[in-house]
Amino acid sequence: MFSVTVRDHMMVAHSFRGEVFGPAQRLHGATFVVDATFRRAELDADGIVVDIGRATEELRAVLAELTYRNLDDEPAFAGVNTTTEVLCRTVADRLAERAHAGALGAGARELAGITVTLHESHIAWASYERSL
Amino acid sequence: MFSVTVRDHMMVAHSFRGEVFGPAQRLHGATFVVDATFRRAELDADGIVVDIGRATEELRAVLAELTYRNLDDEPAFAGVNTTTEVLCRTVADRLAERAHAGALGAGARELAGITVTLHESHIAWASYERSL
Amino acid sequence: MFSVTVRDHMMVAHSFRGEVFGPAQRLHGATFVVDATFRRAELDADGIVVDIGRATEELRAVLAELTYRNLDDEPAFAGVNTTTEVLCRTVADRLAERAHAGALGAGARELAGITVTLHESHIAWASYERSL
Amino acid sequence: MFSVTVRDHMMVAHSFRGEVFGPAQRLHGATFVVDATFRRAELDADGIVVDIGRATEELRAVLAELTYRNLDDEPAFAGVNTTTEVLCRTVADRLAERAHAGALGAGARELAGITVTLHESHIAWASYERSL
Amino acid sequence: MFSVTVRDHMMVAHSFRGEVFGPAQRLHGATFVVDATFRRAELDADGIVVDIGRATEELRAVLAELTYRNLDDEPAFAGVNTTTEVLCRTVADRLAERAHAGALGAGARELAGITVTLHESHIAWASYERSL
Amino acid sequence: MFSVTVRDHMMVAHSFRGEVFGPAQRLHGATFVVDATFRRAELDADGIVVDIGRATEELRAVLAELTYRNLDDEPAFAGVNTTTEVLCRTVADRLAERAHAGALGAGARELAGITVTLHESHIAWASYERSL
Repeated sequence: MFSVTVRDHMMVAHSFRGEVFGPAQRLHGATFVVDATFRRAELDADGIVVDIGRATEELRAVLAELTYRNLDDEPAFAGVNTTTEVLCRTVADRLAERAHAGALGAGARELAGITVTLHESHIAWASYERSL
Repeated sequence: MFSVTVRDHMMVAHSFRGEVFGPAQRLHGATFVVDATFRRAELDADGIVVDIGRATEELRAVLAELTYRNLDDEPAFAGVNTTTEVLCRTVADRLAERAHAGALGAGARELAGITVTLHESHIAWASYERSL
Repeated sequence: MFSVTVRDHMMVAHSFRGEVFGPAQRLHGATFVVDATFRRAELDADGIVVDIGRATEELRAVLAELTYRNLDDEPAFAGVNTTTEVLCRTVADRLAERAHAGALGAGARELAGITVTLHESHIAWASYERSL
Repeated sequence: MFSVTVRDHMMVAHSFRGEVFGPAQRLHGATFVVDATFRRAELDADGIVVDIGRATEELRAVLAELTYRNLDDEPAFAGVNTTTEVLCRTVADRLAERAHAGALGAGARELAGITVTLHESHIAWASYERSL
Repeated sequence: MFSVTVRDHMMVAHSFRGEVFGPAQRLHGATFVVDATFRRAELDADGIVVDIGRATEELRAVLAELTYRNLDDEPAFAGVNTTTEVLCRTVADRLAERAHAGALGAGARELAGITVTLHESHIAWASYERSL
Repeated sequence: MFSVTVRDHMMVAHSFRGEVFGPAQRLHGATFVVDATFRRAELDADGIVVDIGRATEELRAVLAELTYRNLDDEPAFAGVNTTTEVLCRTVADRLAERAHAGALGAGARELAGITVTLHESHIAWASYERSL
């Protein structure tokens, strides 16, 4: 199995509901350094998993819909805690939609799966792994 | 599949028995930067894999039993080489015991597995992965 | 010249005023990974720049006054853009006050200066350096 | 499952054929920071996955055949784009050959697999995972 | 003293003349992860050292003139070894020219200096520091 | 001013005397990731600060005298706490001796200074800077 990963980041404000979150129930923020990994069983004729330029652009486009915002105000997250885990799934699912729509090129139909990791600090991160 | 990882560290002395270890047969030491990863198929009602605050505390508690010690003197490791691999398993198994005992909360019963990675330097690390 | 650095982090929401900030004029957030460096010309009798345990506690105490908050609501920052640079100075000045008040121990009177670096992402950081 | 990873690097020139590569069709170069991971279900009698000294030497030997070269001139890559993905497979396959030939010791016969990751920058990397 | 640093990278081929370079006399390549640091004694009215957006764009523009090239073919480096140290100075000098020409904004006239660091691998890097 | 830095590591056991050290008064250990920085006002005729190959070898030689040892048993440290700060000075002074003895080549006579940084974990490090 092969994989390619590209890294970008987003900077958001949000708050959480639920006693388990302690002080994070207050409005605060985070830089999420985001790693998007694309997996594929065999390489294409060019010797790649995916066009890394396109992968980078699509990740940037997905993060552009989230960054520099207060996620508490985003309709897409109404009634949902925007935890690091939830945001991993959001980014992975939106990348999967774009892959299905052809944004990563024809070869992206051969992708086996996507994993998205969000680093919230130097001591904590989360991941979500899905098939395509 | 979702995962959450928290990082901490420990600083220990130890020595190894066996020619394969070369100069590491002498008493020496290591800082182990420790990553504990908790895996779970679905998120709980709060949108998390595990209470990250509790996960951090439990990892710290497990490492507090090991750090600032000469592991050659610890009864738990009598007759055992405390290699990076063995210590990964020790940390993972002790975290698993705590999860089973409820230290990570009721939701932790849904955890699928734990992976522990110990970084012994900028050029070498080891991991142990187990189910829960 | 000797120095010792300890690392911690904070997670805040804020917004900026001024066209130069572009989309960062909207309410957003950041994780700041914070490095506090203490400088001293000669080591003390124990062979240290500063008690690293105390330095860690004081940095944590300074960051506890800032983390998990919307800095736009903090009286201390009324009328001030809480840029990465400004927050570096805030953390450095508050550490300096604590050093002067004895929180870092008697030996801390020999400290020559403090530098604080805030990493806002994997591709951008700022620093502020001052004497003591 | 246990694993051990060792890190080294190589510095190569190369160019790619295919429109998908854009400006990388020109002769350029890369530092690849290389992580070689060895997996094994159970530890050996010494408590290790593999002799980390030998693993480091074998990785260095494999990279010595590639580093400080223009890969466009290497017969082994005639007609092949030496993408990060392809080079991951090359390094993994050559390590596997050496493991099979006994270079990692008798215990290496118990290895379950090898994963090789090449970091081409702070924002992009690729991996290849194979069984042994 | 305040500073702000932004990070980008370039991927080049080159070779060196001189016995001191050993195997690096052959055509090879490198990824240089580039950190550009801008220093200033006092912050401007917005609370910043420099517009980080512009600093990022100017660094990218400087690196765009170097990346995905064989530096042995660049007239700017005729008769010069493009060592990591030399490339640090090239990037710093070109950023300084742009700052003087106003590309970083009017406030950039207050900049005290620039430092450029090029990381050639996980175990080696170089820097060049100059005033403005 | 130019600088070049090379990185290596050592793994030692030791203990400290003095209440300020708390649990670190017990025999424990550390991995020190060591960065040695060589500074010079102007580059030599080859375009370098120092032969990076020699610098790497000399750093390795200095660390070879310390690694895989219990520093409490080393005569060189009798009556001295081998704190991170003290070890920074030891490594810097030993590199300076080697530079003066010609081990870094004739050009090394032009070196302005050396800085040594020891990283004891992901959250703490120390440095010592000296002239040559």
